[in-house]
Amino acid sequence: KKQYRIAVIPGDGIGKEVIPEGLRVLEVAAKKHGVSVHFDHFDFASWDYYEKHGEMMPEDWKAKIGKHDAIYFGAVGWPAKIPDHISLWGSLIKFRREFDQYVNLRPVRLMPGVPSPLAGRKPGDIDFWVVRENTEGEYSSVGGRMFPDTDREFVTQQTVMTRVGVDRILKFAFDLAQSRPKKHLTSATKSNGISITMPYWDERVEAMAKKYPGVKWDKYHIDILTANFVLHPDWFDVVVGSNLFGDILSDLGPACTGTIGIAPSGNINPEGNFPSVFEPVHGSAPDIAGQGIANPIGMIWSGAMMLEHLGEKDAAQSIVGAIERTLGERTLRTRDLGGNADTVACGKAVAEMV
Amino acid sequence: KKQYRIAVIPGDGIGKEVIPEGLRVLEVAAKKHGVSVHFDHFDFASWDYYEKHGEMMPEDWKAKIGKHDAIYFGAVGWPAKIPDHISLWGSLIKFRREFDQYVNLRPVRLMPGVPSPLAGRKPGDIDFWVVRENTEGEYSSVGGRMFPDTDREFVTQQTVMTRVGVDRILKFAFDLAQSRPKKHLTSATKSNGISITMPYWDERVEAMAKKYPGVKWDKYHIDILTANFVLHPDWFDVVVGSNLFGDILSDLGPACTGTIGIAPSGNINPEGNFPSVFEPVHGSAPDIAGQGIANPIGMIWSGAMMLEHLGEKDAAQSIVGAIERTLGERTLRTRDLGGNADTVACGKAVAEMV
Ligand SMILES: CC(C)[C@H](C(=O)O)[C@@H](O)C(=O)O
Ligand SMILES: CC(C)[C@H](C(=O)O)[C@@H](O)C(=O)O
Repeated sequence: KKQYRIAVIPGDGIGKEVIPEGLRVLEVAAKKHGVSVHFDHFDFASWDYYEKHGEMMPEDWKAKIGKHDAIYFGAVGWPAKIPDHISLWGSLIKFRREFDQYVNLRPVRLMPGVPSPLAGRKPGDIDFWVVRENTEGEYSSVGGRMFPDTDREFVTQQTVMTRVGVDRILKFAFDLAQSRPKKHLTSATKSNGISITMPYWDERVEAMAKKYPGVKWDKYHIDILTANFVLHPDWFDVVVGSNLFGDILSDLGPACTGTIGIAPSGNINPEGNFPSVFEPVHGSAPDIAGQGIANPIGMIWSGAMMLEHLGEKDAAQSIVGAIERTLGERTLRTRDLGGNADTVACGKAVAEMV
Repeated sequence: KKQYRIAVIPGDGIGKEVIPEGLRVLEVAAKKHGVSVHFDHFDFASWDYYEKHGEMMPEDWKAKIGKHDAIYFGAVGWPAKIPDHISLWGSLIKFRREFDQYVNLRPVRLMPGVPSPLAGRKPGDIDFWVVRENTEGEYSSVGGRMFPDTDREFVTQQTVMTRVGVDRILKFAFDLAQSRPKKHLTSATKSNGISITMPYWDERVEAMAKKYPGVKWDKYHIDILTANFVLHPDWFDVVVGSNLFGDILSDLGPACTGTIGIAPSGNINPEGNFPSVFEPVHGSAPDIAGQGIANPIGMIWSGAMMLEHLGEKDAAQSIVGAIERTLGERTLRTRDLGGNADTVACGKAVAEMV
C-alpha cells in the first residue's frame, strides 16, 4: 500500500501556528481511513530562513521537495521585514511556475456557523469553484520602464496568453464542470475593454466548449461578474478566469461566504509531474501572529483538498464534514467567527469530529 | 448669463427610453435654479445610425459635439447586432480617448428604498467615490498574436502607464479626497503579482501623497480590496484605480449598494479642454428595451453629476434630493426595485420632487 510523502512548509507568521493543527487533523483522518502519510518538515520559504541564509530557499530546493507527493504550505510573507517580490516570488510563485502548477483551485462555499455578509444567504445557497490560471496571463515579468524621472516616463507590462496555457486551464475547468450535477461553467472575460488577450481567451473558451456538449456555459465581463458574485452568488457552479481575474474572484468569493479566513486552495499540477501545493487563502497575518488565535480552518480544509487530490476521497470528505460540524458550534469557532476557541482548541475540535 | 450647450446622444436600447426622463428632470431643475441650458440632439453613436451609414459616427463628429459644454449620453451597444469593438470603441471609448476624459467618476452610495445585498447596511453606511483612470493602463491596443493556429500560438497585450497619465488621475483623486470630510484615499494595486506596472503605480501614489499631508491614504491589492468592498464598505471614502481596477470596482461598488441600475457616471476632462460625457453605468439592456420599464434613475443622476461638473451645485443637489425622495416611495420606484412605476412615471416623479 502506497505511503504518501508530504513536504510540510510552515513559512511565516500564522503559517507556523495553523500547520500543526492541519497536521493533527490529517493524522487522525489518515489513521481512520487507513491512509499512510509521511511528513517531512522544511524551514525554508520563510523570513527566518531568509534572515539566516540571505535567500528564501536553498539552491537544491527542487531536489528536496520535488519528489514529494504534495506540499502542505502554511503562509509566506512579512512585508515589514522583506519585500513581496523577494518572499512571494522566491517561494510561492516560484513553486507555481517551476512545478507547473497551472491550476489554482478554490471552493466558494457558505459553511454552517459562518454568517454571510450577503443578506439572507444560507449554507447550501453558495457552493461553487473558482478555477484560476496560475502561471501566465497578467503575472508576466515582461516589460519595463523608459525615460525614467522625466515627464515622458512610462512603464509597460505584457499580459501573455499561450494556446497551451489557456487550453489546459479551460480543459481542467470544463472537466470539473462536467463532473458536477449542474454542469455549468462561467468564464470571466473583459473582451470589450482588453481588446487583444481577452478576445483570444473567449475564442479558446468557445473552441473548448464544443468538446463538452453536456456543459452549459456562459461568460461575463469581469466588472459585472464581480457584481453578480454579490447579487447572484447562486448562479455559479464552476467559474474560470485568467491569473488576475481568478485571483480577484477567489478572494471575492470567500468574502461573500463570510471570511477569507477559512478558505483553502490548491496550486495543482494535474498531470502529477510535480508536487502540488495546498495552502490556506489567508496570508501570514503579521498583525495577529504569535497570539495563538489564528483560525486554522483554512489550513485544515487545505489538507482535505490535498487528500482529495491524492485520490483519498473518503478521508478528505471526513475532514470537510468535521469542519462543518465544528463551525456549527459557536464555542468551537475561533474569535474571528464570534467564538472563543483559540487555534489549538479549534484544531483539536475538528480532529475529534473527524 | 451663460447658456450651457449640451449634446444629447441617446444611443441604443434603453438609452433612448431613459434620456427623455433625464431631460425632463434637467429642465425642471434648471428652470427652478435659474440655469439656462440648451440641448442639441444627435442620433449617431447607435446601431440605427450604423445600419444607415456603415459607421458609428459621422466623420466630423468632433466638429459637431466637440464645442459643447458637456455630452449627455444614454447607452451604446447591442452585441447581437454589432460587435463591441465597433460599437463601444467607435463611440464611448473614442470619446474617452479623443476628448481626453481621463477621469471616470462614480459614486457608490446606498440610497433610501434600495435594499443592499449586504446584510444590515443602511443608507449613510456606504458613501464613497470610485475614481478610475479612463484612457490608458490595461485598455491599450498594443499587442498581437504570433504563430496562429499552431501549438506555439500566443497573444500578448501591453498595459501602459505613463507618468503624465498616472499623476493626473492621482492628483484628481487626492484633490477629491481632500475636499471631503473624511479626507481618506484608498489606492487599488496588485504590486505583489503584477510586478512592473503596479509597483510603478504605488510609487507615484507615494510621491503624490507627499503633496497632500492632510489626506490619510492606504492601499490594498485588488483581490482583497474587492473582498473589503463586501465586508467593510464603510471603510472607504475615495478609491482610485487603474482603468481595469477602476472598472471592476465601479461595478462592484454599485452592486454592493443594491443595483447597477441607478448608478451614474462621469467621463471627465477636468481641464475643460473637451466636453465631458455623463452616462448611466448600466448599458443598453437589449433584453428589456422597448418595454418602457427601464429604471431612469442612473440617467437622471448622471444629469445631476453633469450640473455639478458645470458648477451648478444647487441645481445638482436638488436633483439628488429628488432622487432620494422618489426612491423612498415604493410606488414611485420601477419594478427592478420592487415598485410598479414605469420609466416615464418614475421620471415624472423625480421631476415633481425637484
Ligand atoms: C463598455 C465597456 C468598454 C466599459 C468599460 O469597461 O470601460 C464599461 O464597462 C464601463 O465601465 O463604462
Ligand atoms: C501573494 C500573491 C502574489 C498571491 C497572488 O496574487 O497570486 C495571492 O494573492 C494568492 O492569491 O495566492
